[in-house]
Amino acid sequence: MPDSAISPIRWQDNQLILLDQRLLPDQTEELICETLEQTAQAISDLVVRGAPAIGITAAYGVVLGYRQAQADPDYDLDQALDLLIRARPTAVNLAWAVNQQRKLMQTNDTDLDQALLDNARSIHQQDLADNQRMGDFGAELIKPASKVLTHCNAGALATAGFGTALGVIRSAWSQGKLEQVYASETRPWLQGMRLTVWELAHDNIDVSLIVEAAASSLLSQHAIDWVIVGADRVCANGDVVNKIGTANLAIMARHYGVSLMVVAPLSTIDLQMQSGDQVAIEQRSSEEILGQHYADDPRVSVWNPVFDVTPAHLVTALVTEKGVILQPDKEKIADLFEAK
Amino acid sequence: MPDSAISPIRWQDNQLILLDQRLLPDQTEELICETLEQTAQAISDLVVRGAPAIGITAAYGVVLGYRQAQADPDYDLDQALDLLIRARPTAVNLAWAVNQQRKLMQTNDTDLDQALLDNARSIHQQDLADNQRMGDFGAELIKPASKVLTHCNAGALATAGFGTALGVIRSAWSQGKLEQVYASETRPWLQGMRLTVWELAHDNIDVSLIVEAAASSLLSQHAIDWVIVGADRVCANGDVVNKIGTANLAIMARHYGVSLMVVAPLSTIDLQMQSGDQVAIEQRSSEEILGQHYADDPRVSVWNPVFDVTPAHLVTALVTEKGVILQPDKEKIADLFEAK
Repeated sequence: MPDSAISPIRWQDNQLILLDQRLLPDQTEELICETLEQTAQAISDLVVRGAPAIGITAAYGVVLGYRQAQADPDYDLDQALDLLIRARPTAVNLAWAVNQQRKLMQTNDTDLDQALLDNARSIHQQDLADNQRMGDFGAELIKPASKVLTHCNAGALATAGFGTALGVIRSAWSQGKLEQVYASETRPWLQGMRLTVWELAHDNIDVSLIVEAAASSLLSQHAIDWVIVGADRVCANGDVVNKIGTANLAIMARHYGVSLMVVAPLSTIDLQMQSGDQVAIEQRSSEEILGQHYADDPRVSVWNPVFDVTPAHLVTALVTEKGVILQPDKEKIADLFEAK
Repeated sequence: MPDSAISPIRWQDNQLILLDQRLLPDQTEELICETLEQTAQAISDLVVRGAPAIGITAAYGVVLGYRQAQADPDYDLDQALDLLIRARPTAVNLAWAVNQQRKLMQTNDTDLDQALLDNARSIHQQDLADNQRMGDFGAELIKPASKVLTHCNAGALATAGFGTALGVIRSAWSQGKLEQVYASETRPWLQGMRLTVWELAHDNIDVSLIVEAAASSLLSQHAIDWVIVGADRVCANGDVVNKIGTANLAIMARHYGVSLMVVAPLSTIDLQMQSGDQVAIEQRSSEEILGQHYADDPRVSVWNPVFDVTPAHLVTALVTEKGVILQPDKEKIADLFEAK
């Protein structure tokens, strides 16, 4: 990885090239996707993760699928698009991006291949621009000499390349406002330890790692100003679906009078989902936590949800590319969508 | 390990035999200590851990040291006892047990060898009996069809063999009161995954494992009745010093209206320590969390406290071998010590 900005997703020479995030922080290798199915597999296997990054990846994946359909009349593109959407169950951006491409296919564009590629690139570029706007909006909320804690990875690696929560942290850091950035390791996949620490260190931002269990001590002893997180989905009422452990932090932040900032583009806001209790939460395998221990012990089970729901009333500020909502609720979110 | 009760510490054929907890859950091997120095090393190396278990182990270690001194006139027993006390920095029970044996040596007992061994056995048996009393007291607080969550390992492995928090769970389980037991994995050492799950499964108690981050979801969705934990130290005002992450659970439990039970013998209550903010918290190495990642990166640091402080006002019940205190405070704790 060069000393330039982090690019988790690249389209080059008609190939989709993904930074293989499973190998970070020790190896920076790229994985090439030449088919929609490889793309779906990469999403499913967590080569790429983070709602916006998954959306961008899927948009390029549709281009690959369209080309497969052009080359092979028997290729069932519609079925393939469904497969792509199912690659991860919870990320709203995945279906959003695929369906946007699907709509394009229903137009009579003379060069649909180019139109689909242009649209994927547009989603990609728009995400980067939106992240930078969110970074600036969020940084405005942060006072000089602040200490912040982030969870999981809502960074360059989860997006087109600047980040949502980490975009705000990048902006605030570049403005000299941050005294210390803390990151939680984020079990079971350790995205905080492996990805957030990696990308902050890559950008020369000092970062201190904690285990999730140390959050209460950190919030009570280290005068944290903001907990800053991304979102996998924001509901119409402002409830936030994000990496498991976010609700823990929200409750502790409220307990200690620490502010909670959720940074998410409008594409993450799902107006069809009225509240968090309607969201189906992905459960993952017990092996992620147990490894090979207790392999055949019927007494031992694992409860391994990937996301949790932070109720809107625990959110101090929702930062979007269209501006900031303080104490988000249904009305304010609806207004945001209507504002020009 | 046979299908009988878990015995982390045994005295047999003039040897101290420790279950090597470093190898759990995959191997159940025992380590034989024939000298005081081997005992100190085993404590230091975490072959045995948990404040009561360390105290019991050390008491037997003194017997071994006394015999070494009897066999070798040049053996400096006093220096050896100091070495034993220094085997772990914070465990109160370690110094307490060694100093109790030291006092015995200053008497003119005709058979000091037997007296030291009897005293070690007495400490051992008393801990087991106290745990069983705490188990019964705590189980009385639990209603039928309850679901409970425990953190770290306050079990048979941390004590003479029944456990404090897990003693209550064992008692309640044997009374048919528990619908489900949950355990958190407890980073960074994974005592929950490695030890608590192992010993509950060993005793045929169903257990479901979560990552710490899933606690909010679990408490909100699974109608948990009690969070049940042990304590490394309870202050005079009822503040609880325990494994990092306990305070997180206490705050979330309060948020969701879930009760918090702290199970600890009187020997864990430190009347000299007025409140939790006076307790020096042990910080451990960054390698425990980072492993070999980021080895020489000056941008990356780790904040790794081992314990946290749960304020007394978040504790629903403090269970001791002398009975239960609801909403513990300074006065109630002082009364407990004065009660016969």
